[in-house]
Amino acid sequence: MSARNVFYAQSGGVTAVINASACGVIETARQHPALGTVYAGRNGIIGALREELIDTSAVSDATIAMLRHTPAGAFGSCRYKLKGIEQNRAEYERLLEVFKAHDIGYFFYNGGGDSQDTANKVAQFSQEMNFPITCIGIPKTVDNDLPLTDTCPGFGSVAKYIAVSIREAGLDVASMSESSTKVFVMEVMGRHAGWIAGAAGLAAEHEGDAPHIIVFPEIPFDKPAFLAKVKSCVERYGYCAIVVSEGAHYADGTFLADAGGKDAFGHTQLGGVAPFLAAQIKAELGYKYHWAVPDYLQRAARHIASKTDVEQAYAVGKAAVEFALAGKNAVLPIIVRESSNPYRWSIAEAKLSEVANVEKKMPRDFISDDGFGITALAREYFAPLIQGEDYPPYADGLPRYARLEHTLAPKKLPPWNH
Amino acid sequence: MSARNVFYAQSGGVTAVINASACGVIETARQHPALGTVYAGRNGIIGALREELIDTSAVSDATIAMLRHTPAGAFGSCRYKLKGIEQNRAEYERLLEVFKAHDIGYFFYNGGGDSQDTANKVAQFSQEMNFPITCIGIPKTVDNDLPLTDTCPGFGSVAKYIAVSIREAGLDVASMSESSTKVFVMEVMGRHAGWIAGAAGLAAEHEGDAPHIIVFPEIPFDKPAFLAKVKSCVERYGYCAIVVSEGAHYADGTFLADAGGKDAFGHTQLGGVAPFLAAQIKAELGYKYHWAVPDYLQRAARHIASKTDVEQAYAVGKAAVEFALAGKNAVLPIIVRESSNPYRWSIAEAKLSEVANVEKKMPRDFISDDGFGITALAREYFAPLIQGEDYPPYADGLPRYARLEHTLAPKKLPPWNH
Repeated sequence: MSARNVFYAQSGGVTAVINASACGVIETARQHPALGTVYAGRNGIIGALREELIDTSAVSDATIAMLRHTPAGAFGSCRYKLKGIEQNRAEYERLLEVFKAHDIGYFFYNGGGDSQDTANKVAQFSQEMNFPITCIGIPKTVDNDLPLTDTCPGFGSVAKYIAVSIREAGLDVASMSESSTKVFVMEVMGRHAGWIAGAAGLAAEHEGDAPHIIVFPEIPFDKPAFLAKVKSCVERYGYCAIVVSEGAHYADGTFLADAGGKDAFGHTQLGGVAPFLAAQIKAELGYKYHWAVPDYLQRAARHIASKTDVEQAYAVGKAAVEFALAGKNAVLPIIVRESSNPYRWSIAEAKLSEVANVEKKMPRDFISDDGFGITALAREYFAPLIQGEDYPPYADGLPRYARLEHTLAPKKLPPWNH
Repeated sequence: MSARNVFYAQSGGVTAVINASACGVIETARQHPALGTVYAGRNGIIGALREELIDTSAVSDATIAMLRHTPAGAFGSCRYKLKGIEQNRAEYERLLEVFKAHDIGYFFYNGGGDSQDTANKVAQFSQEMNFPITCIGIPKTVDNDLPLTDTCPGFGSVAKYIAVSIREAGLDVASMSESSTKVFVMEVMGRHAGWIAGAAGLAAEHEGDAPHIIVFPEIPFDKPAFLAKVKSCVERYGYCAIVVSEGAHYADGTFLADAGGKDAFGHTQLGGVAPFLAAQIKAELGYKYHWAVPDYLQRAARHIASKTDVEQAYAVGKAAVEFALAGKNAVLPIIVRESSNPYRWSIAEAKLSEVANVEKKMPRDFISDDGFGITALAREYFAPLIQGEDYPPYADGLPRYARLEHTLAPKKLPPWNH
């Protein structure tokens, strides 16, 4: 049997290390004659539907190697979830047509729970249609909310960025607090799970260190308890540094960020939860405040990526190719923790069906009794994930990231009408 | 004459490298027997008024060396401007009493334009009172708005952080833009001068690179021109990355950030200019957006400090001590650019009176004709200032910053009644 080609796509929100997974896929595939050309979906799975296939064989080994230290999605990603096969059979048929037209036998889908679900459906559908495609997932999500795997590539680097940032900003506020800012609120990602917020807790190693308060989406927001804790921190330490998850909400499920006023245009998207909480503190306690919302900066911050995270992101890309070559299907590589201290990990496999559409939240015993901090157990879990620095190369004071030409494979099919 | 003691104080907003200046002062002073103990004001000049003098001789050489890579103000800073001598003679008298009581002959004041003004007044007043104090300023401000000096220590590191961040976030938005976020707005510091915003422009090296638009406080905000440019960027590049100075304002002087609605508490402090602009774009053009406000993260980001900035911060601290030993008074070390390419700089002196209370803005020829970008001239100015990385040491995945015990010198005077 001649070598069949590969289709790789990035899905959902990008991370500081998703390109390291792409690098792992492409570098590994290039070493195996059983695999033909690696095509990457332009803007993710949309690229397959539109038959916009980036021909990575046009990219030099040196540029592919740079993907390891390049943040964001080098081929473009998308927020596009395929519906169920029954609801939208045409999309699955189109995917298969494109795969057939380009002799694609392997589909690697690099994303979160939704994407693993899609990959699983493509595997099933291709079997039914007698054009079997080997479908392998590659885990990715800054939210760290996939089940089974010990952690998700992308998370460790956000965790490191957030912990470093609150340590640094905490020192700043401490310096200013005698005569100026007393409260600092930093908003972090994580709409449903508080992993990122929790990792910020690593910055606090001694009594009084920032952050003093973490607001988790797992714990309904208790305003009086929160304000009392802010007050007690300011009285004890002179200032209070707070990390709040964007998903913080009241007991009835309303997001804090949605509870504020409307902006000049009547939109509620305006207010983040950080400015909202800061204003509440000012109104109730009178403290001068500053707030920060790093937003995309946190998940794109390759300059301060976790070396552990980069290695794991690469490893899952490499393992995905090796799984395919070993004849596995409808699985994804996951990270297994063998030991926390010293940290040892390995790669295992899990079924796509078991990872799809399940959300892993912070366990209650990772959160302190008062709901505003992390426990020793959480610290043991988080600590290895931010280990090591993996600086990108710099020139003229700025990191040198890969610039990929998107050379598209010639189209063979009529345009996609959807 | 026996060695007289030194008083060093940090003033105003802290930076990623102000402690490098402190390190330069203390390490240099320790080498000179003509100088006695270096006291640092606890929380800046307030520490002198309260007679809270941190005795740095209690701090080991190793910990002092760590100040070089520790952000924020290790001794505490303050926002406290001494009034004129006529308006508040009692404060100056108190300062002098404290200096006398602790045999302080040298005052090093590390701050911006206001602080240089104060240092100058203390020099004059101490002469009048026949207790001459040698007063030397040490420049510091992330805003880069001091005159005479080519740049201000603290600025280069913010500039690097902002340029790196918009490069990284720009790649993120580019990845997502086909099906999701099309506009990203990042707000940066600089209430009156657009130096920080301008430095972001270094990230754009090729046509289409982020940032596509910079909104300067030097250029009155022209909403139709701004929206037209956003639209044209999205149409040409698929997305638009914007950097806006917190000081962006309309032609009548009203800040953009003040023009939005009130929050739930009736405060206008809630809205940053980034969310305000993002909401305007959504309302007028319909694009999906994200926004970021790094706030203190930008000026505390020692993890990505500019090596050039660190070296200059240390050098001005060292030079201040050398100036004092050479018998100079009422001056400050400034940075002189001898050549941009290759970058060469040296230290010179300027009079405190010439630096006090003057604000240096971005020259018009640093800003492109359309008002939304930087020119080649600006690029030549900014580029050397972000050169080089100077990573702090890490342990357990986090930077190790100095932790100083604040050992206070025993008080000799009655409490300060103000």
